[in-house]
Amino acid sequence: MSLLDEIREQPASAARFLDRQLRPIDAIAAAVASRDPSYVLIAARGSSDHAAIYAQYVLGIRNRLPVALAAPSTFSLFGAAPRLDGALVVGISQSGQSPDIVAVLAEARRQGRPTLAITNEPESPLADAAEHVIALETGPELAVAATKTYTAELLAIAALSAALRSAAAGSAREGTREDAEGLRAVPEAIAGALTLESAASDAAGRAANARAAVVLGRGYEYGTAREWALKVQELANVFAHSWSGADFEHGPLALVEPGLPVWAIVSEDAAGDALAPLLARVREALGADVLAISRRDDLGGIEVLRPPRSLPAWLEPIVSIVPAQLFAAHVASAKGLDTEKPRTISKVTLTR
Amino acid sequence: MSLLDEIREQPASAARFLDRQLRPIDAIAAAVASRDPSYVLIAARGSSDHAAIYAQYVLGIRNRLPVALAAPSTFSLFGAAPRLDGALVVGISQSGQSPDIVAVLAEARRQGRPTLAITNEPESPLADAAEHVIALETGPELAVAATKTYTAELLAIAALSAALRSAAAGSAREGTREDAEGLRAVPEAIAGALTLESAASDAAGRAANARAAVVLGRGYEYGTAREWALKVQELANVFAHSWSGADFEHGPLALVEPGLPVWAIVSEDAAGDALAPLLARVREALGADVLAISRRDDLGGIEVLRPPRSLPAWLEPIVSIVPAQLFAAHVASAKGLDTEKPRTISKVTLTR
Repeated sequence: MSLLDEIREQPASAARFLDRQLRPIDAIAAAVASRDPSYVLIAARGSSDHAAIYAQYVLGIRNRLPVALAAPSTFSLFGAAPRLDGALVVGISQSGQSPDIVAVLAEARRQGRPTLAITNEPESPLADAAEHVIALETGPELAVAATKTYTAELLAIAALSAALRSAAAGSAREGTREDAEGLRAVPEAIAGALTLESAASDAAGRAANARAAVVLGRGYEYGTAREWALKVQELANVFAHSWSGADFEHGPLALVEPGLPVWAIVSEDAAGDALAPLLARVREALGADVLAISRRDDLGGIEVLRPPRSLPAWLEPIVSIVPAQLFAAHVASAKGLDTEKPRTISKVTLTR
Repeated sequence: MSLLDEIREQPASAARFLDRQLRPIDAIAAAVASRDPSYVLIAARGSSDHAAIYAQYVLGIRNRLPVALAAPSTFSLFGAAPRLDGALVVGISQSGQSPDIVAVLAEARRQGRPTLAITNEPESPLADAAEHVIALETGPELAVAATKTYTAELLAIAALSAALRSAAAGSAREGTREDAEGLRAVPEAIAGALTLESAASDAAGRAANARAAVVLGRGYEYGTAREWALKVQELANVFAHSWSGADFEHGPLALVEPGLPVWAIVSEDAAGDALAPLLARVREALGADVLAISRRDDLGGIEVLRPPRSLPAWLEPIVSIVPAQLFAAHVASAKGLDTEKPRTISKVTLTR
């Protein structure tokens, strides 16, 4: 089972997740809603931290729940952990092993707060520490770079958002049915994105000489930009740096020079409306070499990888990361790197 | 008044801030404490976002208050803003102008939550939107790259942390006196760090050919790593990427190759204890070219810029950024770049 196999397996793993986990998530959402949390604190690192960023937008916009991304060391390295009154505390980790993430959940449980683990290993220390567990159901992920567990983490968060809305509204509400239809359309939409492999491979071949790159996203797709950058860092050793489009304008924009690769996910919502003019500017005025993952028709002159199926904006990130995964894997191959064993790093990282 | 003048002015601007603002901050802290917030939501971008990261550690560890960094677009670009029950909402902005940051404060005010603006412009839209205002008192900052307003923002957060502890404890407590002594020692400690200019300039000369760099910090100094990276991005156009040491191990570590510049702030507390072995590894096993800002004695073989005066760990970041500011300015000069007018960007950025 190679990295590319795991990327291609994502429609099946997403379908399996929906089959097995939607009902348990309804029960978790009902239990969580009964505690009426005023905000959500999420502890995660690496790719799982990008899933947490997705949660910040999904739960913030759709469930009106503010999301704080925990600084785990404030729990693990220093004496007095923050007080967690009002918080729902969530840990996200493929392996469920990292001691600093487990420490946040253990402290929350000690303080009597509702806790949820999202993990591919329901027998892990993280799952043991949590009151509720959502299993990712992807089967073992063998490649060091996370792919199918990342999309499963996003799907878990999306399903939780839908279930929390349903728990708040009662099951009769119109939005509940639309949410369920959107979730069920995800596996096919991922399959559609996989048809972009040869286009992604072509773009990757042209990017194989890049030493550095900028990756941009906004709103729901900001986490996708972070994850795209991490994939090319760890697989292809490209010095990619991601920003939200807005943060990028507050200083880092000075990095752009002719020929710099700028990669972006440009959504069809208000966040994409805000990002599109910035991309036009870096291409036309500053000469950057822009590549976008987008379904928009107004990105004139920009090279676009276009997923064939549309989804509601809040679900698009589960699909738009897929061409970026393919792109990163093919940049690595074009550079003759081993996609299965990136140098230096390992699958399970134990940080404190 | 040049960028270097503004860097050198920081002992005076810090002293002026302490003279004028400590008493008003005591009153703000008393008013905030009476509302008993369960967490803090901070909206900020650019350098001010790095001050918000500092607040995440200072308020989290010392005041046991969880800090959420707002995704401003969830307030400004999408329909329904998050519910803010239990939150103290803080906006940090040098200019007080950016509409997305103002939108977060305005919404919090509408929801009846306590609000605080930390800004150099007490007549700005951000200050108008907030119930409480802390003025940075630096005088006009003319260089595009923020320096003296950044250290003033950190000092404002540190003073707020001290005042909140005092409000919680009653004024008789021992910790209150120690906090006040620590704050009063900051201007002299910054002056001490300014004596490192020629050493920082030497290190900068050797870094002038760097195309990319890694910047690491943990705990209180993670925000310093972010700010160091931003300074060299905007002033010297170096593709610097910052990570917490723990996040770096979860993937980006694969970027390290012989000769890659790795810059780090290594504190004398538990966070520095965790970071020091990682630095030894990237230098000895992976051949990186490591430069540290640190007062530690156990970084054998690593080039160190050592601030001469010690402070309590929670106040060190106000000082340890200063050699990094000098370093970034001198990398820019060594490359023949204009430190007063970085290409492309402007002093006030209006993002939505």
